[in-house]
Amino acid sequence: MKQKAKRPTAQAQNNVLERIKSLAKSIVKAVDSGEFPQVEIPARTTSNIEYNPEIRQYVLGPRRVVRTAKNIKHLRPLAQLCWMAMFASQLITSKKTSTLRDAFYNALGYDVDFEDQQESDEAVTELETLVGTVREDFNIYPEERSSIFGPLVIEYTVPGYEGRSLDLRTIPDGAMIGPAMTTARIVRCQAEQVFVVEKGAIYQRFLEENVPQKYKAIVVHTAGQAPRATRKFIRRLNQEMNLPVYIFSDADPWGMHIASVIIFGSALSAHVRELNVPDGVWAGLWASDITRYKLPAMKFNEEDVRRVAELEKDPRYVQDPWKREIGQFKKMQRKAELESLSRYGLEYIVTDYLPEKLAEVTRK
Amino acid sequence: MKQKAKRPTAQAQNNVLERIKSLAKSIVKAVDSGEFPQVEIPARTTSNIEYNPEIRQYVLGPRRVVRTAKNIKHLRPLAQLCWMAMFASQLITSKKTSTLRDAFYNALGYDVDFEDQQESDEAVTELETLVGTVREDFNIYPEERSSIFGPLVIEYTVPGYEGRSLDLRTIPDGAMIGPAMTTARIVRCQAEQVFVVEKGAIYQRFLEENVPQKYKAIVVHTAGQAPRATRKFIRRLNQEMNLPVYIFSDADPWGMHIASVIIFGSALSAHVRELNVPDGVWAGLWASDITRYKLPAMKFNEEDVRRVAELEKDPRYVQDPWKREIGQFKKMQRKAELESLSRYGLEYIVTDYLPEKLAEVTRK
Repeated sequence: MKQKAKRPTAQAQNNVLERIKSLAKSIVKAVDSGEFPQVEIPARTTSNIEYNPEIRQYVLGPRRVVRTAKNIKHLRPLAQLCWMAMFASQLITSKKTSTLRDAFYNALGYDVDFEDQQESDEAVTELETLVGTVREDFNIYPEERSSIFGPLVIEYTVPGYEGRSLDLRTIPDGAMIGPAMTTARIVRCQAEQVFVVEKGAIYQRFLEENVPQKYKAIVVHTAGQAPRATRKFIRRLNQEMNLPVYIFSDADPWGMHIASVIIFGSALSAHVRELNVPDGVWAGLWASDITRYKLPAMKFNEEDVRRVAELEKDPRYVQDPWKREIGQFKKMQRKAELESLSRYGLEYIVTDYLPEKLAEVTRK
Repeated sequence: MKQKAKRPTAQAQNNVLERIKSLAKSIVKAVDSGEFPQVEIPARTTSNIEYNPEIRQYVLGPRRVVRTAKNIKHLRPLAQLCWMAMFASQLITSKKTSTLRDAFYNALGYDVDFEDQQESDEAVTELETLVGTVREDFNIYPEERSSIFGPLVIEYTVPGYEGRSLDLRTIPDGAMIGPAMTTARIVRCQAEQVFVVEKGAIYQRFLEENVPQKYKAIVVHTAGQAPRATRKFIRRLNQEMNLPVYIFSDADPWGMHIASVIIFGSALSAHVRELNVPDGVWAGLWASDITRYKLPAMKFNEEDVRRVAELEKDPRYVQDPWKREIGQFKKMQRKAELESLSRYGLEYIVTDYLPEKLAEVTRK
């Protein structure tokens, strides 16, 4: 429990405010001295994204771009970036949260001319790149939320709840990983591992079969692709609490990719760090589990075929189990869902599959 | 607080078990006496669905169908219904929950021959029709969940949590409306009204601006179309606690329909009761709010146009505000989201829109 006393986002938010202030100062200074203001940010073009095997995630390369008011083409994105920086600093100082959609509409009130939400989202990403952190650190949150249950006590830091704690075991449906959870301190952790599951049905099954107690485990439900706030929270459990993380997703290219994004990060988020869990373990459902457990499987459709071919070229998939399972998928052209283990009864996934899989992936 | 001491689903589940037992007995009896077993259930054909203005929801008409083992075409659905009844009674007695998907896969383990999930879902609906209650009462839950926050204290009835209570105000991100919440007793309610919102951003805004405290309100986030468990819970707040319910959704045909399904029920659920909130009030965003509040609006696409034309023929839309707003939509051919009020600042929806709208819809 290295960072027990630290409020995780307070420092991140101070960093954001510092970066925004220095941006503002440099612009004011340039204008005052009759020069064109400009700002330099890392280039986010595909050619500047590279997979860094050392920290095991996608990162931006060394190339940088300059946005300068001297260039009439740059004027618009530069002004939009400045507005977004102001909006972000307002959110932080007023301790309010917002969404991408809300930011877009809010800009309209300032006559800031975003053509559509895509353009306003782009300004948010630009700001992320400039300050080097995720938008959650300047209080722009996604709508989607995951949920969590297990032997963990957190202490809130959001206004009105400072110092109040919650034992996650007291909420039988699980607690949501919203802004308050994301910014909470971890004050007590009796868990020894984290199980991340893609499907609500499996999450519910784990809770009903007392997996958190039997396995001293925190269970996280991602509800499909894990939102970034969720990935960040899983990372904290892994790095602050030293808990191993096991990920369970459907045996199809999409489920496999849900696990891989948690472990290696996403290409779209290459401009930010501290989102991925390099030591996370993809524990199933594997393509090879389909034959091994004789699971009811469905034929690949065209999209599945195309997706597997894409993943095969991805630098995240060059090692086992990824490479091996890609090969299996290509051979079988079939997929199965986590729920398909229910053919052996609702409890089977907990009584048989889970212990077998854990033994397999932890054996070295 | 009429039903304070009653566990809401215990009785419903006893009813389900009774109906399943009598189904089983009648089948065994027929077989014992050398007759073909049969069962009579209300017909769920479109021609047998009617809008009942008295209880203000869609209901099934008087027509009934007979499924008899004498008819070879009936044999398959009759056997499937019997299996599903057995599965449901197992779920209830073992106090486990399941999903539609899980039920489908579980059947495979019994060599029950469902061709696909659609066929197994159909058997669930058939069982709902037979026992006259929703599948949540025999522990088949949806994956999607809504969340809730406000001055309400509930007491859990699920295994391991019996008698433990939760004050919903202690979870700043809101608590999820999962199986445990759905089956909880309401033990204390200091709220005077319920605000139901479609969008996560607005839900978060209401919480951050202390709407629950300022308005003595329970706030529910449906996350789009409200899951049935959520509709049922809102109904309990309305009927058990006598709280008025105000619904806020986007100003488009889809948002309007989210409100209407909560109030009038859905045509697809005509075979079950006790899901809708006839006294619920659609409080916005109306089509007419777009001009009134000068909101940034988008042009209708083809689907929007088609949907408005469909709704115009729907018996739920014959009265104001529905009829009036349908007319507005047809005239304007434009739509707006709740977040668009943010053009006047993030707080505007709470400081201006909400009190104005409440004054308008409660004035008579």
